[in-house]
Amino acid sequence: MLNKTAKQLHNKLIKHKKTISVAESCTGGLLCSLLTKHPGASAYFLLGVVAYSNNSKKRILDIPEKIINKYGAVSNKVALLMARNIRKKINADFGISITGIAGPTGATAIKPKGTVYIGLSFKNKTFSRLFLFPGRREDIRKHAALKAMRLLSANL
Amino acid sequence: MLNKTAKQLHNKLIKHKKTISVAESCTGGLLCSLLTKHPGASAYFLLGVVAYSNNSKKRILDIPEKIINKYGAVSNKVALLMARNIRKKINADFGISITGIAGPTGATAIKPKGTVYIGLSFKNKTFSRLFLFPGRREDIRKHAALKAMRLLSANL
Repeated sequence: MLNKTAKQLHNKLIKHKKTISVAESCTGGLLCSLLTKHPGASAYFLLGVVAYSNNSKKRILDIPEKIINKYGAVSNKVALLMARNIRKKINADFGISITGIAGPTGATAIKPKGTVYIGLSFKNKTFSRLFLFPGRREDIRKHAALKAMRLLSANL
Repeated sequence: MLNKTAKQLHNKLIKHKKTISVAESCTGGLLCSLLTKHPGASAYFLLGVVAYSNNSKKRILDIPEKIINKYGAVSNKVALLMARNIRKKINADFGISITGIAGPTGATAIKPKGTVYIGLSFKNKTFSRLFLFPGRREDIRKHAALKAMRLLSANL
């Protein structure tokens, strides 16, 4: 399913001549890897940032420290900023972000394992959606990458 | 083999308390994805950049345009700068870079498909090695990620 969706999105991005950039945290590069799997990806894939540490979110994605401290790295606010900032950084048509808790550690009472925010930014619009994915770390990473691809595809 | 090597490297990085950052091009996020696969990766994995376009190599990794124009994006010089700059950007102990031609397009007479430079940077030392990997796009990406992990492991 992951590979099939990646191939469909690949074809759609080339057809629509749109460019993308990705900022991912808990998926750790999986989304970038899927989106660059097929030959010709360089036509649309401009930049990916795996912002695993909070420091990298601050330094590379320009997320203010006070925002991370106030809302948490896994939050609607941070997902929005990640998507918008990664898009602007390289002037892509779309910016996609993923920030979540793949586990097994990192969960809290209000943010259980599987909590993932996926953000999408394009001209004049940036939004994020909250998901709660089941399964183990690897399942959650795959679910998140799949949903991010579907979200992008639906807005292309 | 990829997953086994990733797990061994994961354990070694935690044991040695070393941090890393990654700048990858032709592998498109595969190396980051492998290095963040296991729980606890946040102890060592600080930042990954998938610098697929030349523009992203310039803007995010601070590779001068004249260097790319003179030597090409797939070159010893660019691999060295990618490794050094990604390390310095987030103050990691090690910076790892991959730049190459996964194909099927992009090959030239002097740089055939499978040409990959892997760079490693740590305190007072930065070097790169040239490989020529066989196989198709996906094989070349996997070979490159595996070699990068082995190169890092051998220097930990």
